Amino acid sequence: MKNPIRKSVQALQPYVPGEQPTDPGILKLNTNENPYPPSSLAQSALFEFSVELLRKYPDPICRELRDAISRIHKCAPEQVFVGNGSDEILLLCLRAFVERDAAIGYFEPSYSLYPVLAAIENVRSLATPLGPDFEWVDPPLVGTSLFFITNPNAPTGMLYPKRKIALFCGSYEGVVVVDEAYSDFARENCLDVARNLQNVIVTRSLSKSYSLAGLRLGYAIGPPELISALSKIKDSYNVDAVAQRVGLAALQDQEYFREVVTKTCATRERVAQALRERSYQVSPSEANFLWIRPTHLKAEELFRYLRELKVLVRYFPGEFTGEYLRVSIGTDDEMDKFLAHLP
Amino acid sequence: MKNPIRKSVQALQPYVPGEQPTDPGILKLNTNENPYPPSSLAQSALFEFSVELLRKYPDPICRELRDAISRIHKCAPEQVFVGNGSDEILLLCLRAFVERDAAIGYFEPSYSLYPVLAAIENVRSLATPLGPDFEWVDPPLVGTSLFFITNPNAPTGMLYPKRKIALFCGSYEGVVVVDEAYSDFARENCLDVARNLQNVIVTRSLSKSYSLAGLRLGYAIGPPELISALSKIKDSYNVDAVAQRVGLAALQDQEYFREVVTKTCATRERVAQALRERSYQVSPSEANFLWIRPTHLKAEELFRYLRELKVLVRYFPGEFTGEYLRVSIGTDDEMDKFLAHLP
Repeated sequence: MKNPIRKSVQALQPYVPGEQPTDPGILKLNTNENPYPPSSLAQSALFEFSVELLRKYPDPICRELRDAISRIHKCAPEQVFVGNGSDEILLLCLRAFVERDAAIGYFEPSYSLYPVLAAIENVRSLATPLGPDFEWVDPPLVGTSLFFITNPNAPTGMLYPKRKIALFCGSYEGVVVVDEAYSDFARENCLDVARNLQNVIVTRSLSKSYSLAGLRLGYAIGPPELISALSKIKDSYNVDAVAQRVGLAALQDQEYFREVVTKTCATRERVAQALRERSYQVSPSEANFLWIRPTHLKAEELFRYLRELKVLVRYFPGEFTGEYLRVSIGTDDEMDKFLAHLP
Repeated sequence: MKNPIRKSVQALQPYVPGEQPTDPGILKLNTNENPYPPSSLAQSALFEFSVELLRKYPDPICRELRDAISRIHKCAPEQVFVGNGSDEILLLCLRAFVERDAAIGYFEPSYSLYPVLAAIENVRSLATPLGPDFEWVDPPLVGTSLFFITNPNAPTGMLYPKRKIALFCGSYEGVVVVDEAYSDFARENCLDVARNLQNVIVTRSLSKSYSLAGLRLGYAIGPPELISALSKIKDSYNVDAVAQRVGLAALQDQEYFREVVTKTCATRERVAQALRERSYQVSPSEANFLWIRPTHLKAEELFRYLRELKVLVRYFPGEFTGEYLRVSIGTDDEMDKFLAHLP
């Protein structure tokens, strides 16, 4: 038998998610998880969930969740798509909007999943390098049919000028996906661009700002025509009944959500300031993590040094990222411990 | 702007899942859900689940679940893949094993999702019509690189001779996926074929026999090389933490699982007999549903008649299926009600 695995899959270098250590003694600042628990309404929803309901298939179109999201973001339910994590939505966009002989575009550095998805689907991908300080550069308007903008960007945490994004979207011929996994921690976002233009989708995640990474819930907002294309090709029941119920409860507790976000942003600013005082270079962050450049030792050395002390941050080897570390924002106590361990 | 949606997606006739009515007065025998609740261990697992755990990403490779499944089926964890429902696994197989210029094969009638998945992915699909009584027909050995066999078949409930399946798998050049969503209700299955051959994957679902349709859990068993190709292209965190925990608890209660399956099969045989006595033609079923052909009125008429009486069964219009109805097996009480409503 010849090798039955598709050539593009054989050749694939898969996406590597951040390490999930089992040692509870490790201070885990490597995957941008929220240090605070989910809303107590989410706990009640889980606690009161009758397993008997699981006998039946879940609502295939997440009606209640989409209604709640459309109320929060002041749009119609037809402009909302719910996915099994926003990663699922990113792949669906690629499968819905990119012909086999076309290409996707993205910034470098940004979320390293995009080129992996393109490689799996065997479509080309074209990276636009950011400026020397990771700032916005106008991407080419032609040559790709789907462009991913991570905003705030990961792993830098930096927010692009909204005017630049809107101008690009208005001239670009294909679909723009603004991946706003971290935008709840930022001072502005592109939701109104997605509500107004015919070629823009914004994706969101409940993993970070709602502390629900383990539940796998993400959503997209965009023009009904594009949203309906995603619905057409998704798995019939892509979001399970527990996730629908618990996610709804978390979304309904906007007060707690704002409290957690405010606390996280305050800690972020305090830690950024402390790092700058200790002569680390810190990019201006609008996310729940910091992108820091040590000046007195190499980033990889610092990563290993902290790892020895059971402080886990994220190091991305490579041309654009190899001099930096990404540090998730934990509680104030956790960040004090992080600062205390820093050489 | 030209239409940004892929042509194959524009042209797509999407898969239509069975209706999920909201009226609790409806006797729902249309989507092969299990009438019995999930195991009490699943309820305890859900009840005891701390929402605090959802802060973190779930185990990306479902280690505990795969260990449990490998013990149940006497294989290595490397031969097990866990998915967000077995639908996700069917799509992953298509994306992992079928080149763009290749084709998939399947029987007609069988699970109507296969040609939809092929249409989305823009690969060709080749249907092999079953015999006049829905019996096995040897599919062509060439011309396709992935062949889906639903066994027991849906919507007929019939089991193919295992010898025929094994012979076909041994000669076929591509990958065979034996979709065993219903095999827990059958007297035999193809697990040993998947454990022994290099080109065979068996998929299973917790939706039916474990009463967990709402949780979205399926798994695949096959050679490590093929399983590892699925892992390479899956979403990083495709199965959420609650589903992993609750699914594990349900799998650990094999006693309850066997009790439910035994009860369902007994009800199935009793109802099949009663239907035959009332001159319905009933295909020999090894699943949790019956495939029946009314002789005194048209199938579609009977479907509408029962719908009026708030009894919902499944009708599939079309050349091969239009003279039949598919009736899920409920509790004994529910099936007595069904029989009582039958004209």
